[in-house]
Amino acid sequence: MDMRISALRLAYLAGDLTPTKMVEYLDDLLSGEDRHHVWIRRLSRDEMMGYAARLQTLDPGALPLYGIPFAIKDNIDLAGIPTTAACPDFAYTPEKSATVVRKLIEAGAIPVGKTNLDQFATGLVGARSPYGPGRNSIDPDYISGGSSAGSAVAVALGFASFSLGTDTAGSGRVPAAFNNLVGHKPSCGLISTSGVVPACRTLDCVSIFARNAADAGAVLDVAQGFDADDPYSRQAGSGRSMPSGFRFGVPREDQLAFFGNTETPQLFRDAIHRMEGLGGQPVEIDFAPFLETARLLYEGPWVAERYAAIRDFIETRSESLFPVTRQIIAGASRFTAADTFSALYRLKALQRVNEPVWNEIDVLLTPTAGTIYTIAEVEADPVRTNSNLGYYTNFMNLLDLSAIAVPAGFQRDGLPFGVTLAAPAFCDAALLQLGGRLHETLDNAPH
Amino acid sequence: MDMRISALRLAYLAGDLTPTKMVEYLDDLLSGEDRHHVWIRRLSRDEMMGYAARLQTLDPGALPLYGIPFAIKDNIDLAGIPTTAACPDFAYTPEKSATVVRKLIEAGAIPVGKTNLDQFATGLVGARSPYGPGRNSIDPDYISGGSSAGSAVAVALGFASFSLGTDTAGSGRVPAAFNNLVGHKPSCGLISTSGVVPACRTLDCVSIFARNAADAGAVLDVAQGFDADDPYSRQAGSGRSMPSGFRFGVPREDQLAFFGNTETPQLFRDAIHRMEGLGGQPVEIDFAPFLETARLLYEGPWVAERYAAIRDFIETRSESLFPVTRQIIAGASRFTAADTFSALYRLKALQRVNEPVWNEIDVLLTPTAGTIYTIAEVEADPVRTNSNLGYYTNFMNLLDLSAIAVPAGFQRDGLPFGVTLAAPAFCDAALLQLGGRLHETLDNAPH
Repeated sequence: MDMRISALRLAYLAGDLTPTKMVEYLDDLLSGEDRHHVWIRRLSRDEMMGYAARLQTLDPGALPLYGIPFAIKDNIDLAGIPTTAACPDFAYTPEKSATVVRKLIEAGAIPVGKTNLDQFATGLVGARSPYGPGRNSIDPDYISGGSSAGSAVAVALGFASFSLGTDTAGSGRVPAAFNNLVGHKPSCGLISTSGVVPACRTLDCVSIFARNAADAGAVLDVAQGFDADDPYSRQAGSGRSMPSGFRFGVPREDQLAFFGNTETPQLFRDAIHRMEGLGGQPVEIDFAPFLETARLLYEGPWVAERYAAIRDFIETRSESLFPVTRQIIAGASRFTAADTFSALYRLKALQRVNEPVWNEIDVLLTPTAGTIYTIAEVEADPVRTNSNLGYYTNFMNLLDLSAIAVPAGFQRDGLPFGVTLAAPAFCDAALLQLGGRLHETLDNAPH
Repeated sequence: MDMRISALRLAYLAGDLTPTKMVEYLDDLLSGEDRHHVWIRRLSRDEMMGYAARLQTLDPGALPLYGIPFAIKDNIDLAGIPTTAACPDFAYTPEKSATVVRKLIEAGAIPVGKTNLDQFATGLVGARSPYGPGRNSIDPDYISGGSSAGSAVAVALGFASFSLGTDTAGSGRVPAAFNNLVGHKPSCGLISTSGVVPACRTLDCVSIFARNAADAGAVLDVAQGFDADDPYSRQAGSGRSMPSGFRFGVPREDQLAFFGNTETPQLFRDAIHRMEGLGGQPVEIDFAPFLETARLLYEGPWVAERYAAIRDFIETRSESLFPVTRQIIAGASRFTAADTFSALYRLKALQRVNEPVWNEIDVLLTPTAGTIYTIAEVEADPVRTNSNLGYYTNFMNLLDLSAIAVPAGFQRDGLPFGVTLAAPAFCDAALLQLGGRLHETLDNAPH
């Protein structure tokens, strides 16, 4: 089935599809073995039917996401279904859904299940889960990317039209790149995080995976909105627009990193050419302040946010954590309050240093990740491989940027490559629009 | 001499006064014993003459602060004069002045000296200094208030027309109240802190002491402005205006604290009546979220900012610190990075809780301090007395408010009482205007 929102919407409006039929279709599709380790908890046929039943009496045109199936990363609450954050002993069953989930359901979307993730959303590989490593939708020997592993693979395999991830350091973009999807990391505070298990609460975003930018935009329209119950929610600012002769920043050649991959450099050059074809003017920029900011997240005290988020749990049941996750989060104890404030000062200075670049460029273009790894490679060297995947992503929320990861072609072995467009906060609409145009310059894009 | 800026300006324009005469006057005035412990370093006659000489060839009308003498808290750099932060072993001699000092000098102001303070601006009493406890300008047995002790007393005793303080937790307001002055705590980031020894860098403000609000406003006009070199500098936002029938918030009766003082409750009621006389409508508000925010500063990890600010120094030369200051700042070590982030989350939630109050009121009216203490009382119980003085001040910067402390009458023993008007960031001009009007309702105000 063509799972794009636009296609399903037409089918619903034409009467060719009903929510009940959709649930039956999905239940059949999902009944097989979950060899990609997509799900922590699939919804049963009856559970999905409960959501579908409400829609049967409504006009398909009345709700923007009428009958659209979606998957939910298992650190986001769905009422009545356990939230595990990929840690079985941490599980709790929420009485109410996260604000964003509630909004999507109210708009007609049907939840399909809760998806696998790097435990406590700590990782960019997708392999750090007791529910099994997330497997790539195109080649299961490769990682799915993470931490929103199952949410990306679910959409890539056609189990859902879209899915919710979270994105603190790159968790909504890396898996998009590795599964040939669009991954939108909205401006911080644009989508409520009420009902989301915190990772780094000062930086957490709910993110959207979709097959194309138009679908992601349709989801964002419903998902966004100020939430007085979320202290980190923000009123949407007026973002910059994207002029027709837009200038796009590209990191200086020697600041690009592909980690030994011999094909992705050319795929990135192709993306630059395609951006030029859209009327963009490339501008070489000094990427060093972005990289220093990225390192600050990786090496600095923000890991203590992950500790603070599960403090009672980790202090009493640390043996319940996945080993590499425990090792990372326990590393928080080496940072003092003074270290934390010093890092916040450094960040403030880096934010100031980064500001002028947005006078020179309208949008930043980078690879989403320089390369991809097999699950075996990640297991052999879990920290370094994970770190490499954050090279182009870790700075994004610290610098308060909005971003969209967009498919950008394939390696000869069929594995996908992706690029990311980024701009200051609240440029979401402009990025979705430009990202969609860039995506459409690829021959195989699901327009 | 009438040291008000407006009075001096008239004298300069009329030719009755010259910068040289002013320096001679000040040098005579300051030649006596410094029994109030105002100064850490008075400028010599020759040093002051250096600043005056430049002015002799200029038209008095050409510079807004032509020949106006000012005092500088000794945690703010003046080129060529040691900055001690009231810690002799910490002293360094800056090559250039703090940005704000440079601006004031360029506008014609003449520095008179560097003033005493609670060491490293840690305290609200003014007594925590190896240079001697700051003595109140009206009754030297009483504290000056702090931490900007000498800056307030210098203006009160007529040694300067205005002075610079800093205000992190109340250091620019408490000494104003105790010396019958106006103390303006500008919006955070409005005045550059480049060249200021940090206390809590995320919260520090440079503040202004003056005899009246008009003088403070004249200084602010020169002192403010975005500084790209200060990561915490902000572009001035558009503040709210103060409607003629403004609503002013007053804490609920049971949330007011006067710490046993039997006269200040009536002085505060008088201030409420005078605000009503200006056309204001009193609105009783729940002060609890403000008080909880204040406690967060006092009991939370922000003390680690003070540690971070002098980390190398305190780790190698802790014996150089004033005992009570060392004890307080060393207390930072009990806070971890996770504690810090947890406190930042709590603050974010409190900020959100506090926001709606500004839909009900235009301005908040509180005592600046509920009572005043003798130096002996503070020495007998240094922590509790200090804590009491922050009851109405500690929340201000955490909630990103602008504020002005205004004289509000006298106890029968002649000691002054003050009130503070506060509003969201960038309401500085409106607060200065309203504060000036409130001040003028007192019989003895230096209009």
